[in-house]
This record gives sequence, structure tokens and C-alpha cells, in this order.
Amino acid sequence: MKHYLSIHDLPSIKATVNEAIELKKDPLRFNHLGKHKTIGLLFFNNSLRTRLSTQKAALNLGMEPIVMNFGAEGWQLEFEDGTIMDQGKSEHVKEAAEVISQYCDVIAIRAFAGLEDKAKDESEEVLSAFVKYATVPILNMESSVGHPLQALADAITIEEHKPAKKKLKVVLSWAPHPKALPHAVGNSFAEMALAHEDDFEVVITHPKGYELDPEKTKGARIEYDQKKAFEGADFIYTKNWSSYKNYGQVACEDRSWMITADKMEVTDQAKFMHCLPVRRNVVVADEVINSEQSIVIKQANNRTFSAQVVLKKMLENL
Amino acid sequence: MKHYLSIHDLPSIKATVNEAIELKKDPLRFNHLGKHKTIGLLFFNNSLRTRLSTQKAALNLGMEPIVMNFGAEGWQLEFEDGTIMDQGKSEHVKEAAEVISQYCDVIAIRAFAGLEDKAKDESEEVLSAFVKYATVPILNMESSVGHPLQALADAITIEEHKPAKKKLKVVLSWAPHPKALPHAVGNSFAEMALAHEDDFEVVITHPKGYELDPEKTKGARIEYDQKKAFEGADFIYTKNWSSYKNYGQVACEDRSWMITADKMEVTDQAKFMHCLPVRRNVVVADEVINSEQSIVIKQANNRTFSAQVVLKKMLENL
Amino acid sequence: MKHYLSIHDLPSIKATVNEAIELKKDPLRFNHLGKHKTIGLLFFNNSLRTRLSTQKAALNLGMEPIVMNFGAEGWQLEFEDGTIMDQGKSEHVKEAAEVISQYCDVIAIRAFAGLEDKAKDESEEVLSAFVKYATVPILNMESSVGHPLQALADAITIEEHKPAKKKLKVVLSWAPHPKALPHAVGNSFAEMALAHEDDFEVVITHPKGYELDPEKTKGARIEYDQKKAFEGADFIYTKNWSSYKNYGQVACEDRSWMITADKMEVTDQAKFMHCLPVRRNVVVADEVINSEQSIVIKQANNRTFSAQVVLKKMLENL
Repeated sequence: MKHYLSIHDLPSIKATVNEAIELKKDPLRFNHLGKHKTIGLLFFNNSLRTRLSTQKAALNLGMEPIVMNFGAEGWQLEFEDGTIMDQGKSEHVKEAAEVISQYCDVIAIRAFAGLEDKAKDESEEVLSAFVKYATVPILNMESSVGHPLQALADAITIEEHKPAKKKLKVVLSWAPHPKALPHAVGNSFAEMALAHEDDFEVVITHPKGYELDPEKTKGARIEYDQKKAFEGADFIYTKNWSSYKNYGQVACEDRSWMITADKMEVTDQAKFMHCLPVRRNVVVADEVINSEQSIVIKQANNRTFSAQVVLKKMLENL
Repeated sequence: MKHYLSIHDLPSIKATVNEAIELKKDPLRFNHLGKHKTIGLLFFNNSLRTRLSTQKAALNLGMEPIVMNFGAEGWQLEFEDGTIMDQGKSEHVKEAAEVISQYCDVIAIRAFAGLEDKAKDESEEVLSAFVKYATVPILNMESSVGHPLQALADAITIEEHKPAKKKLKVVLSWAPHPKALPHAVGNSFAEMALAHEDDFEVVITHPKGYELDPEKTKGARIEYDQKKAFEGADFIYTKNWSSYKNYGQVACEDRSWMITADKMEVTDQAKFMHCLPVRRNVVVADEVINSEQSIVIKQANNRTFSAQVVLKKMLENL
Repeated sequence: MKHYLSIHDLPSIKATVNEAIELKKDPLRFNHLGKHKTIGLLFFNNSLRTRLSTQKAALNLGMEPIVMNFGAEGWQLEFEDGTIMDQGKSEHVKEAAEVISQYCDVIAIRAFAGLEDKAKDESEEVLSAFVKYATVPILNMESSVGHPLQALADAITIEEHKPAKKKLKVVLSWAPHPKALPHAVGNSFAEMALAHEDDFEVVITHPKGYELDPEKTKGARIEYDQKKAFEGADFIYTKNWSSYKNYGQVACEDRSWMITADKMEVTDQAKFMHCLPVRRNVVVADEVINSEQSIVIKQANNRTFSAQVVLKKMLENL
């Protein structure tokens, strides 16, 4: 594994999950692995968990994190080839990526979907350009279409909290939100869950019009009746996203899709999961997120260990 | 001591001052105490001294500082319980504080008074929420009503510069300023000084209408005649604050209250103190701040050691 | 050498270049030199290479970098003496510089020319004030009139890529740009090149009206015919700057001055250099910057080693 762009870059998700759970017992065990190595964390968008947990993971491995808020602190980047750069952008990503590769042993990037141009978002403009031009491993800290560090943390969390059952029912449920949000978390969760086909029955539920990219959800059961989807579930993973078909539009903002206690009651004592930040009483009712079934805080804790296990693999490969 | 929210959280101010003076002689003595421990410095407001000195203190103890400018880099936080979060705020402080506690061993917070809603400011909305929801020690880097790291640095500075006298006259003087400022520094200095009742005679001087919260100044002599207040003083501590009664208002901007050489002359060769930043020739005349009596730079240096002694106590308690 | 404000602060440019080339072979050799020493990186302007490479250099020397974006994170500074500070600026640089000197062992500063007031820019308002009031070494990370870390990186890069010739022809060429830019890089490159008078023939080429400060270019041949300047050249160093005479104005934006392959053809297989960020197809054509003759990425890499050799000298002097 050189880059970590999608969960499929892992040689084995299961083995990686187990390795992360081992790391968590002794987070400083590989503290010498990253000595005198720097990781550049480049933020094109805001961040709390990713910002802090990726730094923590790097520190646990003995690395030196260097954080840069790209828009505010650096230069506007040009991504097109052959442009006459006489407008607002003062540096081409080719130079930026090659140059940063000389100062940092790993480059981590957060660059959200703009939700205005589907083709542009699907091309992973920022992430792909760094993969193309950088000469060091690239770590995806949430891109236009994926959030694989989150998905790996989710897999770790499910492994830690799963009931003793032959097959788990794992439900990804859309929930309402006042703003149009990207598909990255939903996509990556679906990909991760579907990669567990022997162990998980994967159900995705949302109002009509909120179908995710069918490429990412192949093999999942799509169920438009939320309550029916929840029946007997072991994990309810909630996230809002905007329409994929009418790209970036808010098709409906149906508040009845909020996760409530009565919906959780039809599950098999399912654990409630969300990547955070979450809008209380819009996405999920207080009664659910405050309940014992909610494991969102533990899930956030696993962000450190998903980043750490991935960085460990990168360092071992340098 | 778990949290450091007010100077009263210290088991003993005097013992802590002496400990800080010892630390200052050998700042790296406890460099192994914070090894592999992180401190998250969360800034909801600007900062220079606090930003740099708290990092320096943490580094002296071997800790890893992680700095985050909360507004610009993260998400807007909701502090109310039970809200339907469908407006601008995307994360509840409950989740934020619990999550950050998993990445940081200590959380340091700067969140100034808004000066618009007295009850809200006095509730210490941000600081209290982190105390309530975080699971690690909270360090107050200036909150709505207090700046106890500053007050501790002030106590250290007074101890280092006090004349050999049985009782010191310590004067807190209001000074003019073009903008409405919070009461935090004035409050904490008063609390600290009044805690030295055996050693200090505490006089507070300001124009009528600028009385601080009487809870914070109980035991101090309030003197509306500035020159009379200065007579025989050993320390002149200057700071502007807005009205507490007409909360956040600028009652008068009387320039005659500026600290000048002729006022310093009626003191007993008093030392001049200010927490900085200070507006020259508005709060204090150049002739005073440039004089040998001014100890503002040494006072700022003690910010490192006030933070370090407090962090040391927290680390010893972890 | 205490401060590094201009390339002339180096005891010997040649010896320093050689020392940097040695350091580059074993960048961690002096990793203990900076142990428990902090460098404060104060940015009054944006930065990518300088921000990252100076941190990397400091880390290679074992130092702890503390980064501060001055405008956004701190207070507006007053630089004039004797002002009544009742306007927007809340702290005088005197206090700021003295205070930061107590937290940081070295202070590095980036403060660009404003290009509105020539006398103010030439006085190096920010840099000079820190030199005046700080009590620790000051490192210039690009000031109003100079960028000596860049010039030193340029000297290292030329040394590494020079052909075996008795005298090198080194050409500094102006190039078009949509915005008015400072003179700092051009000035410092000229100064560095002219300091190599025994080894370099220095030619500066630009349209009439773009003459740099004659003090900085004394000894250089000024050639208004770009192609003639390029004939037989070994190094083409390109940079835009605004007019010095009509200070900060864009005299002409003549696109025909862009560096193209046909211009490079008249050189003696010259290397193409630029400090970056560079606007492609405005300053330089893709065909040139993408060619084997372009050494801009290697030049950027040397920013780490120019900073490191300078910091090493400062640390040895502390």
C-alpha cells in the first residue's frame, strides 16, 4: 500500500481492523517508526476530529505533524493543465505537490466536494492531482467522494461492538439536514460494509431521490421504508447527504427521517453510529444519541487508530 | 486540583508561586512528566502571549501542543441543551468536548466575554460546557469572567519584585481605552490580590460607574480618586474594563485616568504592571511604560511559568 | 552572525553554500543542537515553501517550531513611536517583540512590502522593529526589500548545477504577471549573484521602467533586449516585480517577456530557475518549466537547507 485513498487500498480490511485493535492496546509501541519523519496535513476545508486525531496518530508513531490551512495560509491552486494562469490562482498543483513532497514524508489532504460540478467532484480534482504529482504517500482525510479513514474507524468500532451473531444487519440510514452535504461518508461506509459481504447484510435506507452512486452501493439492499429497514438491525449508521442524481440538490428535507427512539425499538438493540459533527434533534433525537445504544464517541476515538494503522503501513513502506 | 478555572482552584497560591519561582530556575527539570501527553489549545479568540507561553510551558514539560483556532478551523458549536440544531451551528459542545478529550490529555480554552448578555457571560458558557462534558483537565486561558493564568503570573511577578515591607499596597487602576473590554483580567487580579489579605492592602480605583462585580472585590477598598489611591503604593496594576453595571457599556472614556509619571510620583516607587497588549499613551504614557518602574515584560515572561506550574500539577494528577 | 536579514549577514556566502551542501547529505547530524529551543515563525503574509521548509529545517536541528499567523491570530501592531494608540492597533511592536523573545530562542518573520509607501517599505518597518526590540536572533523569511533565505537557496542550487566553466553567465529576467509584486526576490538574487563577482557575469533584463533599486544592482549589466541578455547564459532566473521608480505600479504587462523555449534556445543550455509560486504560461511557458532545463523543484528543496544552515549558525551563537 502506497497511498490511502479508499478503503480498497488496504490489503485486507479485516486484518487491518485487527491490527488497529492491537495498536489501541499499546499506542506507543511503534513510536520509533516515525522518528524524524514529517506528515503535512493540508486542509482545504474545516476539520475537528480529523485535524486532531490524525495529529495524535502521527505523534503516537513519533512523527512530526505540520499543519497547513491551505486556503487561508497559502496560495490558491490551479488544477487545470495548460491554463494561462493570469487569474486568481497563483500556483499550479504540480509545483505545490512536488515541492511539499520534499518537506514531508507523507501528505494528508482534506478537500470536500464542491457539490456544483459532479464530473469535477468525481474526478477527485485535488486528491488526484496530489497523487499524480507528489512523490510521497497521500493520505485521504476526506475527499470529494470518500472518507476512508472514517470508514476504517467505523469498521473497527463495529468489530468492537458486534453481538455474537453469524450475520450482522448493518443499516445505513439517510437523515435530514438543513444544508446540502457531500456523499463521501455515505459512500465510504457503504464500500466498507459491502466489503464484509460474508459477515454483514447491508441495507441502505433513504427517501426516493437520495440514491447514492450505484457503483458504491452494488450488493446493498435499498429500502425506502426506514422502519422496515431498521427491523432487527444490529447497527444503525446515520448520515445526511444531498441528491446524487440531481447532483448536490436537497431533494426533500423530510424531518420524519430523523432517528428517534421508537425507530430504534424495532432494531435488535442496535448500536447508533454517526461520524460527527451531528445536528441534534435534526439528524438524531437527543433520546437516541444520549442513550446507551449510541457509540458515536467511541467511534470518534477510533479515528486515532484508523489513522495510526494506516500511517504505520505507510511508514513501513517508505 | 483537576481543572484550573480560577485562582481559587490552587490548593495554595503562595506555595504555587514559590513552586513556579523554583521551576523558573530549571524549566526543563520536569521535561519527562509530559512525555507522550498532548495539550489541545482551543482558541475561540485571538491571542499572542497566551498562545505562545502556554505552548512553551507545555514543551518545557515535554508535552505535545496541538493548537486549534476554533472558529476558523472547526465547526460552530451549539451550547444549549435540547435545541433543534437546524441553524448555523453544526456540532454540540457535548460531542466536541467528549471527542477532544480522547485526543488530548489536557484541554486549554480561550473564550472571551461577548459583553452583550451578562447572564450568558457569567455562566461561562464555553468553559463550563467543556468542564461539564470533557473527561480531562480543563485549563482556562481567559474566559468570560476570569484570566487565572494571568493572575498567577501577576502573583509570581509581585513576589519577585516586592520591596521588604510588612504589608504591600497593591492598587488596581482602571484606565481609559477606545473599546469596550471584558472584566476577566481585573476580576482575576482582584481575586488573587484579595487572597493575599495578610500581605496586601488592596485598593481599586476607577471612575464611578466602573465598579467590578462586588463578589470579586469584597474586601478591597474602592477609591474614586485615582491620585489618592496611588499614594504610597508599591504596585500599580492597570487595566481597562467596560461597565459591569451597565453591562459592556463604555460609561466614560476619561483620558485623564491614563497612568502618567506625575501619578507614579505619589507612589512609593511603585512597580507598573499591565497584562498586555497595552495601548500606549491611552492606557499608560510612554514615560511610565518605558521607565525602570515598568515590569510588564518580566510579567509577560512569567506567563510561561504560571502555565507550567499549573500544567505540572495537572500532569501529576493524571 | 546574530540576525539573518540579508545575504550580506553571512560571514562568507561561498563557505555557507558548501556547508549547506554538506548538511544536505546528513540533515540530522546536528539534531541535538536545537534541543529544547523554540523558533517562533511569525507570518504577516501567506506562505507555502517558507512555512513548511523553515519548520522542516528547524525540526532537522531538533528545534520546536511555533507558528503564528500574526494578523488572523494575534493583535494588530503599532510601529510608530509616541503614537496615541486609540485607533485599530492594540499592541506596540516594542512589547510584542520583547515578549516573544522570552518564549522563542529565534524569531522568524515574513512581512511583505505593502507597495504603497516606498519609504516605509524601504525602512523595513516590521523586520527592523523586531531587530530593534527583540532580544533574540531574527530570521528574515521575506521582508519588504529582501528574501535572503531564497537567495541562499538559489546560490546552493547554482553551485549544485553549474557547468564546468571559468565564469558563469547568470541572467535575472523580469517576466510579466497580472498583479503588482514586491522587489524582494529580485533584490536578493541580484545581491547574491553580484557577491559572486569573480565567478558570475550578472545580467539583468527587463523592459524600461522596471529598473530595480540601483543600490542593489550595482555591478550588473542592465540589458533591455531580453534575447540578447539570454545569449550564452548558464542560468535564467525569472521573477516579476512592479516598478521601483513609479513605486508599486505595473508599468507594462508585456506578455512577450514570458520565458519560452525559443528564448531558452539562445542560452548555453541554461538552467531555468524561479522561486515559486509561478504562474504558468504567464511568467514561463509550460514547455520550459516542464523541460529538463527547469530546476525549480530542486531549488525549492534547497529552501530547507538554506534555512537549516542559517539556523545552525544562530544556534551555535546562542
